[in-house]
Amino acid sequence: MSSRLIDSSVQAFASLPGIGKKTAMRLTLHLLNAGPETAERFAESVLQMRRNIRFCAECHNVSDGERCSICESPRRNRSLVCVVENIRDLMAIENTGQFNGLYHVLGGVISPLDGIGPQQLHVDSLLRRAATGEIKEVLMALNPNIEGDTTVFFLGKQLRPFDVQITGIARGVSFGGELEYADEMTLGRSIVARTPIPQEH
Amino acid sequence: MSSRLIDSSVQAFASLPGIGKKTAMRLTLHLLNAGPETAERFAESVLQMRRNIRFCAECHNVSDGERCSICESPRRNRSLVCVVENIRDLMAIENTGQFNGLYHVLGGVISPLDGIGPQQLHVDSLLRRAATGEIKEVLMALNPNIEGDTTVFFLGKQLRPFDVQITGIARGVSFGGELEYADEMTLGRSIVARTPIPQEH
Repeated sequence: MSSRLIDSSVQAFASLPGIGKKTAMRLTLHLLNAGPETAERFAESVLQMRRNIRFCAECHNVSDGERCSICESPRRNRSLVCVVENIRDLMAIENTGQFNGLYHVLGGVISPLDGIGPQQLHVDSLLRRAATGEIKEVLMALNPNIEGDTTVFFLGKQLRPFDVQITGIARGVSFGGELEYADEMTLGRSIVARTPIPQEH
Repeated sequence: MSSRLIDSSVQAFASLPGIGKKTAMRLTLHLLNAGPETAERFAESVLQMRRNIRFCAECHNVSDGERCSICESPRRNRSLVCVVENIRDLMAIENTGQFNGLYHVLGGVISPLDGIGPQQLHVDSLLRRAATGEIKEVLMALNPNIEGDTTVFFLGKQLRPFDVQITGIARGVSFGGELEYADEMTLGRSIVARTPIPQEH
């Protein structure tokens, strides 16, 4: 290419996940053509985010201040805490609009193969929250795999001294999912864990 | 969302062409998780590019200096100039590795409906280059539509006083393209402009 400056910007975009060389060039040329203030505003938003972002002292969610807007909200049910692996999962649950409690972001799951034990996760702060007696229910919203199940088992044991109910999110065939395409594990569990259908009288 | 800083970064990414809200969130969380220096380097590359980029005084290609690396190269054929609409087209041709001449970036094509006349394009500088007598051939690599054809016609007339040959890129059925899926115009022209196939003797 004829410009190292362009090359450098293309490489910066292409280093982001899911962005290839061609897309990176398209984005670079967009910022080049769009007038200087567009690129300045773009870079400024990214820098401000990275430099000033904080993590909630209570639940470890991203936050603009000491505590996140969810923990600060007077409208949330403070006796129900949903344990999630990361902020992406928190956002996915928050986007459903179906959860009115607080969260606790673990920052990962127990995975001995990756060298991640309870010490690397936000477990102590969860136990401190449980120790206040404010929490009545902890909803474990971790992924259904070995690491997730191990973590749920570990956290359940740690939470035993406190008077909290441990729950898990419902597993089953997706809404709109076809039975014949559901995997055997999901379909099998959805039959074992069948739910009553209300009948009209 | 729980953070205006995150929102602002997501909006910045989502304002780029072809980036939706979900991708913008994924990119933002990537930069958030990747350590501060990654976001700093990313934003710096974009800012450096936009702040310091220049346009070649000769061909209007993007450049790190007064003249671009193509115009500066002693290995290029200076008697052949390829006229392109924009830098993307220049890069597409450069990537083929089949063109060894110089370029001239018009910065658009004549389009009365969009209020773009020859005054808005880099026509004068092309005529000045032709006036030096160094150029023997001008290859018009504009898109085959009304605006492109109008521009080729206009430039041809303007270049008449100078002793340069005007050529156009070959049109026809793509390599690997199936005849039955080629549009009628392309297929029709490719028959009218048929080329001899060398025979073995």
